[in-house]
Amino acid sequence: MRVAELSTATGVTVPTIKYYLREGLLPQGELTSPNQARYGEQHVRRLRLIRALIEVGGLSVARLREVLATLDDHDGEINNLLGTVQFNILPPGDDQADAAGIAEVDRLLERHGWHVSEKHPARQVLAGVITRARQLGMGWLLEVLDPYAVAAEQVAKVDIDLTARQGDREAMSEVVVVGTILGDAMLTALRHMAHEFTSARRFGAESFTDRS
Amino acid sequence: MRVAELSTATGVTVPTIKYYLREGLLPQGELTSPNQARYGEQHVRRLRLIRALIEVGGLSVARLREVLATLDDHDGEINNLLGTVQFNILPPGDDQADAAGIAEVDRLLERHGWHVSEKHPARQVLAGVITRARQLGMGWLLEVLDPYAVAAEQVAKVDIDLTARQGDREAMSEVVVVGTILGDAMLTALRHMAHEFTSARRFGAESFTDRS
Repeated sequence: MRVAELSTATGVTVPTIKYYLREGLLPQGELTSPNQARYGEQHVRRLRLIRALIEVGGLSVARLREVLATLDDHDGEINNLLGTVQFNILPPGDDQADAAGIAEVDRLLERHGWHVSEKHPARQVLAGVITRARQLGMGWLLEVLDPYAVAAEQVAKVDIDLTARQGDREAMSEVVVVGTILGDAMLTALRHMAHEFTSARRFGAESFTDRS
Repeated sequence: MRVAELSTATGVTVPTIKYYLREGLLPQGELTSPNQARYGEQHVRRLRLIRALIEVGGLSVARLREVLATLDDHDGEINNLLGTVQFNILPPGDDQADAAGIAEVDRLLERHGWHVSEKHPARQVLAGVITRARQLGMGWLLEVLDPYAVAAEQVAKVDIDLTARQGDREAMSEVVVVGTILGDAMLTALRHMAHEFTSARRFGAESFTDRS
């Protein structure tokens, strides 16, 4: 298909497609004349992946490039892939994290027997959140950490089992990238919906229905 | 304290503080002379709250104004507060959601007996993610929805119980706002860390430690 058809198939404008081509995020099409190229199903798929990572995951173009490069070149070790994806997907560590927040994360991981590398960016993110909660005088909010960790471990097992069931390395890679980003969005959306009926049950109040 | 001291206490620059004052996000200080004002502990606290909502939650100033107004003026109905906060915190519904994605969300809520209002923005967000997964040829990813829903319900019960234990309406309001935003960040960070050791166990691989 021509670039115009690629645009129609994916809902991504032609200038945006050309930008992704220039930035090397989308592989070049097959040249049919000096200034015309043909694109295929793999371009449609890659464009949808790019849009999902940007629109759902909020990835910058720089981070996106890193994640896509990993997808294209990885060494076949699923665990390396998972590491590279996660190390690039999370926002940079929260600079609010203080020593007490970092120590709290260490103790939490210890209590749950989690082996997590020192460099995992989620450590810093979590430590930053803990520090902020304390600064707001809401240290008691940290009571949720242990039950959250139990829920997160259940969810992670489901994710990794699903990844392991993929037939080939390429499918595994995709599930790691897409599953990490879309999975965060799914879990957050479900938590917010669960708040509505749990709160209605607990406080005997009406649901959010009549909110304008 | 003067505005310079408020800046030192919170790490927020003076121009940013003045911007929040102009925008009405931060209440005015007490005037001690025609062009000098005194600020107190409630300003420190409010500034930390604003920074947490922007830096952790990624809220825009417009959304932030809505959430803070709810905190300041709400009618004391905790459930109304929770609704208003959530309806303003989530990004606008994913415009990728198609009819099949929306129907899938309906069926999921039905299976779990969740009563969620039609207008809850998380419905649209989840439907959009489902649509994107299918467009990527990864419909099997949706297998995670049921176990995720179970985990989200556990987490939501912990959240609402903690909210219910707060002594007064004001504390409840804060926990709703802060707990929704910081809770999303905590759960996501924990899921990412749980991926590391779960994957290492499952695939017998080394941890992420040696990644550069």
